[in-house]
Amino acid sequence: MDTHLHHNTHQHTEEHLESSDFLRDVVIGMSDGLTVPFALAAGLSGAVASSNIIVIAGIAEIAAGSIAMGLGGYLSGKTEQDHYTNEEKREHFEVENLREREIEETKEFFANIGLSKEVQEQATEEIARDKDRWVSFMMKYELGLDKPDPKRATKSALNIGISYIVGGIIPLSPYFFTENAIDGLKYSAIATLICLFIFGYVKSKMTGVKPLWGALRVTLIGATAAAAAFGVAKLFD
Amino acid sequence: MDTHLHHNTHQHTEEHLESSDFLRDVVIGMSDGLTVPFALAAGLSGAVASSNIIVIAGIAEIAAGSIAMGLGGYLSGKTEQDHYTNEEKREHFEVENLREREIEETKEFFANIGLSKEVQEQATEEIARDKDRWVSFMMKYELGLDKPDPKRATKSALNIGISYIVGGIIPLSPYFFTENAIDGLKYSAIATLICLFIFGYVKSKMTGVKPLWGALRVTLIGATAAAAAFGVAKLFD
Repeated sequence: MDTHLHHNTHQHTEEHLESSDFLRDVVIGMSDGLTVPFALAAGLSGAVASSNIIVIAGIAEIAAGSIAMGLGGYLSGKTEQDHYTNEEKREHFEVENLREREIEETKEFFANIGLSKEVQEQATEEIARDKDRWVSFMMKYELGLDKPDPKRATKSALNIGISYIVGGIIPLSPYFFTENAIDGLKYSAIATLICLFIFGYVKSKMTGVKPLWGALRVTLIGATAAAAAFGVAKLFD
Repeated sequence: MDTHLHHNTHQHTEEHLESSDFLRDVVIGMSDGLTVPFALAAGLSGAVASSNIIVIAGIAEIAAGSIAMGLGGYLSGKTEQDHYTNEEKREHFEVENLREREIEETKEFFANIGLSKEVQEQATEEIARDKDRWVSFMMKYELGLDKPDPKRATKSALNIGISYIVGGIIPLSPYFFTENAIDGLKYSAIATLICLFIFGYVKSKMTGVKPLWGALRVTLIGATAAAAAFGVAKLFD
């Protein structure tokens, strides 16, 4: 029974980790994709009458935002990889050349988690027998770094970029079908706030936040951003 | 000597961790703040002749983007906190009520890092003596969760939002002083690409990426986003 429960937990944790990178990307891309083009279009509706300019500005924003966020995701993935590789080289060097110091650091890890002097010594002695395993241990538990997936950066860029475009089309599409900007804004606000609510609900379910509360928070952010953009644009008009 | 080096490393690591949250926020806010308003204004320059509309659109975008990103940072900080609190409760419950299973999981941790059966047993027995310490250990090393700073969410929102505004003013300001959009675009491109290069250089220095290469990558993202927005806006005009 214990083993059964135990295995379930582990399976659960691993599934959670595998899908969480993808979902995190979609959440990052879609929440900004829904919010920023929505708020930009709302802001422009306060300042210009024709929905034509809003469509052009919105499309320019979606192109800019999806590329900036997508490539930003790529870059941060690459940076994470470079960082991991550099730190791994350093740990290998230290294990080879600064063995005494690494032994002290390993002992300190075991001291910090609350083991006795005796078990600290034994555990360190056992870990230090296999240098590769020792380096993995130091990477993960001294530095808190997980080995990044080498395809992560590219996948991340695509996931974020596409989610941004998908999100951005929703608030913008009403302006395609209306002459007047304020009419477009009405339909855009209805469509976007509903989508933000659903999106916030699903996202909260996944991350273990109370779904209704989470959905309201996400919707409120979108509404606040749009109202601020509307007000500021009217002010500078 | 060993101890000295060792202490230095630890101090270094901790300073790195303390400032890294702030710097991460600034990097997140400023890179998007420099890139997206720059690209949006560039896109509009391809489609509208007057720089007046670009200024209004740019200001609406900066308002929208800073709020969306700032509040987004706030929300993700809060979510992280809720998640930590929930998981901590669960671990406390498990340590109280599913002791055998937690003992197995703790042993498994020590088995995975390569300790012998004997040391696994001893280490687990010692850790399980103090329930609070045991829970902290499981939180950090089984689940890989660090206790979040409760003020983090608010600080993060402000850091990201303000960095976005500061970043966004740079590409937009030339349009304030030019009548013609294309003139504005020229000065905006020069000012923004220089700032992106400096920003990319400093960011790369901090994260341990080759600075020149990192600076070029960041600049290229900005230029690509602007070119795409320009092209797409012209297409839809």
